[in-house]
Amino acid sequence: MALTLEEPTLTENASDLTRLLAALNKQAGVAEVRVGLGVLRRLPEVLREGNWRVTVTLAEHEERAEVVAVEPGPSRTPPYGLAVDVGTTTIVVALVNLETGATVDRRGSYNRQFRFGDDVITRIIHASQGPEELRELQSAALETINALTGELLRANRLDREAVAVVFTAGNTTMAHLLLGIPPDFIRLEPYIPAAARFPVVRAGELGLEVNPEAPVLSFPAVASYVGGDIVSGVLVSGAAEAEPVSLFIDIGTNGEIVLGNRDWLVACACSAGPCFEGGGITFGTRATPGAIQRVEIDEDYEVRVETVGGAKPIGICGSGLVDCLAKLLAAGIIDRAGRFQEVDTPRRRDSDDGPEFVLVWQEEAATDGDIVITESDVKNLLRAKGAIYAGIRSLLKTVELPEEAIERIYIAGGFGNYLNIKDAVEIGLLPDLPREKYVFIGNASVKGARMALLSREALRGAEEVARKMTYLELSAGNMFMEEFTSAMFLPHTDLSLFPSVRGTAGREGR
Amino acid sequence: MALTLEEPTLTENASDLTRLLAALNKQAGVAEVRVGLGVLRRLPEVLREGNWRVTVTLAEHEERAEVVAVEPGPSRTPPYGLAVDVGTTTIVVALVNLETGATVDRRGSYNRQFRFGDDVITRIIHASQGPEELRELQSAALETINALTGELLRANRLDREAVAVVFTAGNTTMAHLLLGIPPDFIRLEPYIPAAARFPVVRAGELGLEVNPEAPVLSFPAVASYVGGDIVSGVLVSGAAEAEPVSLFIDIGTNGEIVLGNRDWLVACACSAGPCFEGGGITFGTRATPGAIQRVEIDEDYEVRVETVGGAKPIGICGSGLVDCLAKLLAAGIIDRAGRFQEVDTPRRRDSDDGPEFVLVWQEEAATDGDIVITESDVKNLLRAKGAIYAGIRSLLKTVELPEEAIERIYIAGGFGNYLNIKDAVEIGLLPDLPREKYVFIGNASVKGARMALLSREALRGAEEVARKMTYLELSAGNMFMEEFTSAMFLPHTDLSLFPSVRGTAGREGR
Repeated sequence: MALTLEEPTLTENASDLTRLLAALNKQAGVAEVRVGLGVLRRLPEVLREGNWRVTVTLAEHEERAEVVAVEPGPSRTPPYGLAVDVGTTTIVVALVNLETGATVDRRGSYNRQFRFGDDVITRIIHASQGPEELRELQSAALETINALTGELLRANRLDREAVAVVFTAGNTTMAHLLLGIPPDFIRLEPYIPAAARFPVVRAGELGLEVNPEAPVLSFPAVASYVGGDIVSGVLVSGAAEAEPVSLFIDIGTNGEIVLGNRDWLVACACSAGPCFEGGGITFGTRATPGAIQRVEIDEDYEVRVETVGGAKPIGICGSGLVDCLAKLLAAGIIDRAGRFQEVDTPRRRDSDDGPEFVLVWQEEAATDGDIVITESDVKNLLRAKGAIYAGIRSLLKTVELPEEAIERIYIAGGFGNYLNIKDAVEIGLLPDLPREKYVFIGNASVKGARMALLSREALRGAEEVARKMTYLELSAGNMFMEEFTSAMFLPHTDLSLFPSVRGTAGREGR
Repeated sequence: MALTLEEPTLTENASDLTRLLAALNKQAGVAEVRVGLGVLRRLPEVLREGNWRVTVTLAEHEERAEVVAVEPGPSRTPPYGLAVDVGTTTIVVALVNLETGATVDRRGSYNRQFRFGDDVITRIIHASQGPEELRELQSAALETINALTGELLRANRLDREAVAVVFTAGNTTMAHLLLGIPPDFIRLEPYIPAAARFPVVRAGELGLEVNPEAPVLSFPAVASYVGGDIVSGVLVSGAAEAEPVSLFIDIGTNGEIVLGNRDWLVACACSAGPCFEGGGITFGTRATPGAIQRVEIDEDYEVRVETVGGAKPIGICGSGLVDCLAKLLAAGIIDRAGRFQEVDTPRRRDSDDGPEFVLVWQEEAATDGDIVITESDVKNLLRAKGAIYAGIRSLLKTVELPEEAIERIYIAGGFGNYLNIKDAVEIGLLPDLPREKYVFIGNASVKGARMALLSREALRGAEEVARKMTYLELSAGNMFMEEFTSAMFLPHTDLSLFPSVRGTAGREGR
């Protein structure tokens, strides 16, 4: 904002800082505001260079406002913010114009922490070895964000000084690693994080290559396995402000599930494993070009696949795997327990590792051999989908509500948008509820971080979500294990839970 | 303080930080508290090492409390604080036990900024040359404080981690330099400091060798030439809480003067020059062993001197100079205008630089020649004392009060304790008020910093003092110059202002 300060005289001799604060108060109605040493050090020169006319960039967060930059004269550029999704696999940085609220540009890439392990547990183990190893993981995340930010700034012809505030959303482990807080006890029973609310730090102090005075804010977490990404997602969904009961599901390596409404929220995390991100599956892959995302199997067991970008198939991504499982079952190639059946097609064959089914012959694929799905892949998928569904059931049982009480289901996370809900219900991954109750919200972390960048109310809303959410530790007690065992069928041992599915497995047991 | 945290379980799985904050709230009644990244990073290990019993060190300041350290198990040492007087000439560091409130030890030394000039103006000029020069001055102050702190810690067998909070009091220029804030405009009309309230910084960030999380706090200043040292002094005096009107005087290179009571305070600064610190005087010196602090001149112009520590005379310090001036006048060696008279003694002689008077012959001195006071020294002293007295008169005139309205006069600053009030009145340095109204408060900077370390109320009191104080810029308008001209006599052109002095200059004009 542009301010005109009173010029000092011998009798009006308040300090530069007092003068700035007075103008902020009078001309912008900003009362409580922090001015850090970095800004203060440049203040005398800037005020005089601008002949007492300056442009002030403010960052506001739950505690108070901060002056992040003071420039002489009228502003050259509007202030920007970064909304950062610090994912275990992928980091996405969105550049947000804080004046218009527009997302100007965004970039994403693999999280460079990848070289220390591809899931949070292996990274925690690495970080637990000592301060040096923890620093390695912190640096890897910072390098990733800095590289993406550098691209964004270059592409949009901006100085790093233009970025006045950074908001990050990530799971609890990512939040610890980014700030260099030891995550050691997150992986050890009883799974206690060092913090669930994170201090505000300066970008310069942390090593983020934006305005060094920019505050770096993080969404609060709820527990070791329900992090700021989930809080962000619930914020974006609006589930915590509505009266009807909603279910929020983020399926990644962990399935994080939140149930509730404006009065109460319960959350849990279930180790789904990396299947839906393509991990632990023979031909699993992320949803990159060539990844199979749709599978059709006809009466003669012939297969038609659809890939991301229409490229030659390279493997199967999460939504393709859900589809595949549903179609294998519908075609009678596997039974409700996931066991391969004897069916009459060369695609069904036995390898050294057990039965498998050829989805794409080598000639049509971009791979060295046939793209297959194995019985062991199916078992992994069964465990993954069983864990998610058991988590949903556990939450419902805890609050003593039937599935029908759920008015809306929000699907967040990487594979969210491409998921075929009908298939997901057929395999018993998602509850058998009317399709219109399902809503895809995409990358909720970036969206939530952007909301929190732009509005103090949104940030307060996130605080409220985190405060209100009760975390249910599934490993305490037997409820989850019982639900999990029951869910290790397609769709479930209790078919009454899936009324719409009954008829579809037409060729069952053929 | 010792805290016992709830041990976490699968169902009581709040984060380490939440657990700590809950214990602080429940067991110590501390609600709003900041926990910085440095403490958070060590928290998981410390909690488990201490088996959920820990000792927490808090630092409290106007904004809120902060957790500075968490140690496993019961405390080994109490927390300490440093009260630091950042003087232009001398830096004093006092080590304060924050539990008992006792000043355990203290050390003082020359401010290493000395090599860049011996007064604030020359240092500002150096700092104004660029960031590197500013950093040199900042480093010099930090080095001085670190050296003194190192001595204190060694002598008292303490780790640097034991020091949990640092409170500094210094003039406005010293406060700027210590924090690396450009002081450039302090010396240029209209004399505007960058800030009069200073941000709280971490010791580690600043480079102070104590607990890196320790907050470093500074007294607020009022104006470029009325700094936190004066606010500290007024706090120590209690003048701002009393109903009677008080006068507070700190005589150093500048004479800072505050007049007022609990309802109002006015302050001014007058360039007294460095005379009273021994600067600009032929045989001037600081109040170190051998410095002449008392002078007697008998009827035969024979001189008896008393030195600090009884050592052989090396020069004359501030209190000695005041005494000397009064005795030269009483003996008729100088007249009311400070001109040397023809008196019959070999001590009165003429040098190439004009008339002079021998205070100590070389044989009795630790110097290479006779210790003399020259007419030019006297003129300098006259200007210095004139400036102080004119400042007092200007404040009184501004609020339209007579001298008699002053109920108490607080004398602070280096030479304070040794000043002979009677002499000071005789030369017209101080107002002619009953001796019992005078109170010496010594090094008020260290005392005030210690008070602020120990009590949040004291700190709030200081904020209140700074807020309430109206700064009168003496160079605006003619009032001060008129008062100054009138005060360039011994004691004054208007003798009615000094009724008790009338009779003493018995040999005037002899």
